[in-house]
Amino acid sequence: MSKGLEDVVASSSAITYIDGIHGRLLYRGFDIKDLVQHSNYEEVAYLLLHEHLPRPEEMKSFSAGLNSKRALPDGIRSILDSLPRDGDAMDALEMAVASLGIYDDPSLPLNDKAVSIASKIATAVAYIHRHRQGLRYLDPRADLGQSSNLLYMITGEEPDELSEGLLDTVLIIHADHELNASTFTARVVASTLSDAYSSVTAAVAALKGPLHGGANERVVEMVTEIGAPANVESHVRAKLAKKEKIMGFGHRVYKTMDPRAESIASTPEEVNELAILEKVQEFMLKEKGLYPNVDFYSGFVLHHVGIPTELFTPVFAVARTPGWLAHIIEQYSDNRIMRPIAHYTGPSYERYVPLSLRAGKITN
Amino acid sequence: MSKGLEDVVASSSAITYIDGIHGRLLYRGFDIKDLVQHSNYEEVAYLLLHEHLPRPEEMKSFSAGLNSKRALPDGIRSILDSLPRDGDAMDALEMAVASLGIYDDPSLPLNDKAVSIASKIATAVAYIHRHRQGLRYLDPRADLGQSSNLLYMITGEEPDELSEGLLDTVLIIHADHELNASTFTARVVASTLSDAYSSVTAAVAALKGPLHGGANERVVEMVTEIGAPANVESHVRAKLAKKEKIMGFGHRVYKTMDPRAESIASTPEEVNELAILEKVQEFMLKEKGLYPNVDFYSGFVLHHVGIPTELFTPVFAVARTPGWLAHIIEQYSDNRIMRPIAHYTGPSYERYVPLSLRAGKITN
Repeated sequence: MSKGLEDVVASSSAITYIDGIHGRLLYRGFDIKDLVQHSNYEEVAYLLLHEHLPRPEEMKSFSAGLNSKRALPDGIRSILDSLPRDGDAMDALEMAVASLGIYDDPSLPLNDKAVSIASKIATAVAYIHRHRQGLRYLDPRADLGQSSNLLYMITGEEPDELSEGLLDTVLIIHADHELNASTFTARVVASTLSDAYSSVTAAVAALKGPLHGGANERVVEMVTEIGAPANVESHVRAKLAKKEKIMGFGHRVYKTMDPRAESIASTPEEVNELAILEKVQEFMLKEKGLYPNVDFYSGFVLHHVGIPTELFTPVFAVARTPGWLAHIIEQYSDNRIMRPIAHYTGPSYERYVPLSLRAGKITN
Repeated sequence: MSKGLEDVVASSSAITYIDGIHGRLLYRGFDIKDLVQHSNYEEVAYLLLHEHLPRPEEMKSFSAGLNSKRALPDGIRSILDSLPRDGDAMDALEMAVASLGIYDDPSLPLNDKAVSIASKIATAVAYIHRHRQGLRYLDPRADLGQSSNLLYMITGEEPDELSEGLLDTVLIIHADHELNASTFTARVVASTLSDAYSSVTAAVAALKGPLHGGANERVVEMVTEIGAPANVESHVRAKLAKKEKIMGFGHRVYKTMDPRAESIASTPEEVNELAILEKVQEFMLKEKGLYPNVDFYSGFVLHHVGIPTELFTPVFAVARTPGWLAHIIEQYSDNRIMRPIAHYTGPSYERYVPLSLRAGKITN
């Protein structure tokens, strides 16, 4: 048995290729470094969902579709309004996506459902955030795209070009990553022929786990603790001596630099903490032979553009939604229900002992 | 690659043993036939969650725990009240479980969370049903146990002993079944260290799929279509000739009679359709060498005790919750995040083509 299904091929897929040895990541055959440099998040979402780069008219109609579907139905707004302000944002997001399954028209074609989910999940994250903060909810703006709308609806400010571009980059590099735990969850659920809403709800539930989402929050915490470049070595050494994990390093799949980390390591010159980050990275490579993963830089970029720490995982969910949907659609297209087996390690008893005979000491 | 992860060992487990060759199913080492005959659903839930049969005082306190946790928080009732009456019951159930993650005290010990979920999911199913029907919601009754409360809250009538026993049997035989798709989903989500509420929400999302839950509804439909024992042979022959699937037969794991089907095949003498069922079973074994699975009988038993067809899958979710929770707890106890890999079958392009150059015919 391969614990955690490491190296077990669970599916064929034509969506994302990871070359862990050379540190390459392709979406539908295109290197994410090229996509980060030349494309944008909406186009990447199209590419993941439709298997090819859009022609100009296809892109226009896809963006218009996202735009027209951004508003949350009143029923969902009321549900989110009713939640206690200190409730968990990811629980609220699970509820928002599940309720979309009720409020969307069930006869919508699958592709339209996908656009609706991808669009509305961003609105839902912003809505949940502003409700938790006791702030007035902001309607999505028709003149802004997916990234800038997300940023606007969260912060209340129209983003400048730099912030929009930085967030776009973070969304692109998180848009898919093959059979990570949340995407795998989405595919297992879809393999029962459950619908796309339920499959994405389950993916959000998986992303909630601190081993999946959340590592970038802890990198930010660590760097805040470190405080200054001069403290890096003593701080990290002390942590390693206590056998504590340094967050943001190493990855089950990448044996070299995570190409997603590389894509953003080159962008955040604006980030104040860059000097600390670089020193930690250098030290970890020298001491432990470990490369940073995407979580090492992403939190700082999100922080820089104005996303509060507690929204890192919900924003990750927004970013990953086109990937989840592409995998759900692919699973439907050549499906078999996912039903592995377990290796039984428990006992086997000859017979049941009635309750009345269990009053004394019993051994099972 | 083994499509659908067939025969892939995804985990060790000491919960449930399936002997597909001899048609045996053990929960924590006890044969479900013995459990159906001598135990009851609450005791089986205890057994699954606590790894051993309870002593009388343990059983008493477990039942009292279920009893004291049955009421849904007002906030969840309001949310369910707000849903459109024609909304899907499983979507509503996903929302109810996810919202429990917000309304339960997050500091509860895991075992208490498990009891709360197992208890309240039954109340939620009844609440959702009565809301959809436009009927007044019924509070759980302190003098009734898990099965009889479920039946009472759904139907509005206090069940007689026979109905209570029949439902108890159906709940027992559905309480766990190793790494079926919903349980596997729950374990994948738990493997990210996401919480029990989110893991069960995801399991409900998986059970919603017609390849997982729902087969027993279609058996009931088929038998209604058949109408009388004399029509069995011609009806089934016609379906087989059209290569249609006869629901309720065969199972990926069982190569003989499904022991769960056997456990209820012997109980529903009261079921009017028994003569039709027996004839279909006989014909399918003779013609196709196929044995009935649990779905073949369970729908009729549920129908007989007064559960409407559209609640078969939600009631299945109630039944399976202790199993899901036992697997979630076991996953936490020796965890590694579930992260398989995919076999990449897509293209690889040398470079990205800018949008402006894609105006004409493009090939990717």
